[in-house]
Amino acid sequence: MTGTDPSTGADSSLDALAHDLDRAHVFHSWAAQGALDPLVIAGGSGTRVWDHAGRTYLDFSSQLVNVNIGHQHPVVVRAIQEQAAQLATVAPSTAHLARGEAAKRIVARAPEGFRKVFFTNGGADANENAIRLARLHTGRDKVVSAYRSYHGNTGAAIVSTGDWRRVPNEYARGHVHVFGPYLYRSEFWATTPEQESERALRHLERVVQAEGPGSVAAVLLESVPGTAGVLVPPPGYLAGVRAICDRYGIVLVLDEVMAGFGRTGRWFAFEGHDVVPDLIAFAKGVNSGYVPVGGVIISDEIAAGFDERVFPGGLTYSGHPLAAASIVAALDAMEDEGIVENARRVGDDAIAPALAELAERHEVVGEVRGDGVFWAIELVADRATREPLPDAAMAALKKDLVGRGLLPFVQDNRIHVVPPCVVTDDEVAEAVALYDEALAALPR
Amino acid sequence: MTGTDPSTGADSSLDALAHDLDRAHVFHSWAAQGALDPLVIAGGSGTRVWDHAGRTYLDFSSQLVNVNIGHQHPVVVRAIQEQAAQLATVAPSTAHLARGEAAKRIVARAPEGFRKVFFTNGGADANENAIRLARLHTGRDKVVSAYRSYHGNTGAAIVSTGDWRRVPNEYARGHVHVFGPYLYRSEFWATTPEQESERALRHLERVVQAEGPGSVAAVLLESVPGTAGVLVPPPGYLAGVRAICDRYGIVLVLDEVMAGFGRTGRWFAFEGHDVVPDLIAFAKGVNSGYVPVGGVIISDEIAAGFDERVFPGGLTYSGHPLAAASIVAALDAMEDEGIVENARRVGDDAIAPALAELAERHEVVGEVRGDGVFWAIELVADRATREPLPDAAMAALKKDLVGRGLLPFVQDNRIHVVPPCVVTDDEVAEAVALYDEALAALPR
Ligand SMILES: Cc1ncc(COP(=O)(O)O)c(C=O)c1O
Ligand SMILES: Cc1ncc(COP(=O)(O)O)c(C=O)c1O
Repeated sequence: MTGTDPSTGADSSLDALAHDLDRAHVFHSWAAQGALDPLVIAGGSGTRVWDHAGRTYLDFSSQLVNVNIGHQHPVVVRAIQEQAAQLATVAPSTAHLARGEAAKRIVARAPEGFRKVFFTNGGADANENAIRLARLHTGRDKVVSAYRSYHGNTGAAIVSTGDWRRVPNEYARGHVHVFGPYLYRSEFWATTPEQESERALRHLERVVQAEGPGSVAAVLLESVPGTAGVLVPPPGYLAGVRAICDRYGIVLVLDEVMAGFGRTGRWFAFEGHDVVPDLIAFAKGVNSGYVPVGGVIISDEIAAGFDERVFPGGLTYSGHPLAAASIVAALDAMEDEGIVENARRVGDDAIAPALAELAERHEVVGEVRGDGVFWAIELVADRATREPLPDAAMAALKKDLVGRGLLPFVQDNRIHVVPPCVVTDDEVAEAVALYDEALAALPR
Repeated sequence: MTGTDPSTGADSSLDALAHDLDRAHVFHSWAAQGALDPLVIAGGSGTRVWDHAGRTYLDFSSQLVNVNIGHQHPVVVRAIQEQAAQLATVAPSTAHLARGEAAKRIVARAPEGFRKVFFTNGGADANENAIRLARLHTGRDKVVSAYRSYHGNTGAAIVSTGDWRRVPNEYARGHVHVFGPYLYRSEFWATTPEQESERALRHLERVVQAEGPGSVAAVLLESVPGTAGVLVPPPGYLAGVRAICDRYGIVLVLDEVMAGFGRTGRWFAFEGHDVVPDLIAFAKGVNSGYVPVGGVIISDEIAAGFDERVFPGGLTYSGHPLAAASIVAALDAMEDEGIVENARRVGDDAIAPALAELAERHEVVGEVRGDGVFWAIELVADRATREPLPDAAMAALKKDLVGRGLLPFVQDNRIHVVPPCVVTDDEVAEAVALYDEALAALPR
């Protein structure tokens, strides 16, 4: 196979083969299968990926916002190769050194009072198990989560999800949804961040009261709702949610699957929001998705409840050796190389000002918002009414950006600007120039 | 790290470290956490694993019945290392060559009329997505599955599960359970396999009728219920289930997560049962768990329903490159080296006669049953009443076997004899001698 170097081994027949095999045999996520025309990707490095023919793309999607450490970080690749040479798989009931080392490094980055990790295969089952822990800990059933959210595709995770993906899958019980803060499209007739925060809290508390607080096991929120639009919570919101949970004996689960491990320029997105949750769901950034993995970081109080009582959850690949080795390597490399700090600095110094300038230059930009390397450009047909740019225009914009050599993350009427945390100022400038050209090329 | 060779690099301080880190930071599946004393495993090869100090074990558990190709098959290890060097992760919306090659090899082993694969991270989400497909295909809600079953730990998979693990997790709706055939402990007062099969079918059809056939989306069964006791279905049962599904327009999902890809000495366990399902859930054996992966093989009829209609399911690591590369290598190696045939031959020539002999020698053996390298020894306190051997005796037996250097798979009152498919006649003889000694050492 080719792909390690875009300048050599160009072989477009492999691209055709990959494309044909995909269309013949691969059933895709979240899509009608008939008209798919997927891009072939064969290799990558840092902020770039390429196909077999050597055509390269600047990856400002981080794939599904998971490649925080960049593509093909050599330390992580080597750790996977070495662990594969030792022992590729082992049952979760054993003790495995890399698994213990991974758990130790994860809890070292969590707040005080978190010492145990339950490993899963991804984000959905991280949330499943967080919900399970919350239900068993409280003896209650209901889970309150946000309409503007995505928590994964399995039974309880998909019904916790608020977006359209929930509706065709509503076959788990005990799920209730609320609106979270989103000042640009306030559900609360608010005009300032403070008002939005206060009113969103009042709304949440009223729903909890109306559902019967004694029936609510968990409030499950993304620290920063991601796919829903990079909705950085206004000051006071998450701390207020914590207070409501404390008032009613509810477990607070923060879903850090997309926001965690560097994306916001912090190890966890909830840092700086004056809040400590009871359970933290993670995946993606913990090892940049080099091996499928996720998990739940469990507060000592909740963990202690299962010292004598059986935890009724589990999976064959919990704490998989390759996943564990890749976590150890990824977290060490992120620490050693200051990758989280880089995300913060590039966010503040390069992305924030460049996107503000884009917003000034293009009437179609309704709002830009974000933190670290986690940003959204919200596009509108009309700045006054804030009517979203139609789907057809967004699809054309996406195609145009790919044609210009940039992999964008396009969701609804937004471009999410979500490069790897290792992105440089120059790469930001390069990407922003492409966004600028593509926005300028939009028909008016 | 040590571990590649049990004869060198012995380092028991690493075992202590692995054990301590595990106890400090790892939250385990399906267990009370307080009293766990997990075995450290550092490396393996074929049918053996070892710790850091070089203490080796004969692995007759295949970990969680997933290491079908044996530990550390060099072709699969190399494929993972090479793919890691190319591209460790890529979004599922792209086309990736190894993913297409993996899907092609999987459908090549499925019956006619299956051309597409939806990839997941493991067995639970394979079943989640099979259930989703069945519900959307039929427009119906209920899933009928067996009390004696295990389908995974997420929302709908855990509620489809019939064993005790379902009860504390019953938060998805639309699940109904039936008894399947199990002549040794018949729920139908049957005395012959034919009668057991007929009566189990009659029971299933009566439940479907009573639930309202128009409300039943799927019948979900393990082709050979595994964790529940390696319950090879009697002649006619699965074909009869197929007929009932056809009669009422119900989707038949066969869960081949544990039974598939060589375990029974066939690519799929349902082969030889005169049945073709509509959806096949797989995981474990497809790549022996070297990288977390699972999926659903979709019949053309069901797949076609999603050509124009959006499939509302998905996950970040669907069709992960490392998983895909390991599937390609594992399936090719299994084919090239006749590993499935080996499982069949060793089952027929070595395991079957040896276990029959054990049953003759030990009063405590109530029944032995199985197929390929998928067997159960059912232990009883009393052959006449078939009262299961008590948990305390089983725990002692398990500990005794580990002490003798064998990793057993112990479940309820049974030892499951589930070595890798590459097991040799000599290794079977070695293991059976250890079972024999341990059974002889049981206090009467
Ligand atoms: C916030 C959040 N939670 C959970 C998930 C689900 O993760 P996975 O796709 O690994 O199941 C996602 C995936 O995008 C996510 O963004
Ligand atoms: C038949 C069957 N289905 C599904 C599963 C769940 O698979 P996983 O643990 O990978 O989620 C298992 C696991 O043992 C199984 O045996």
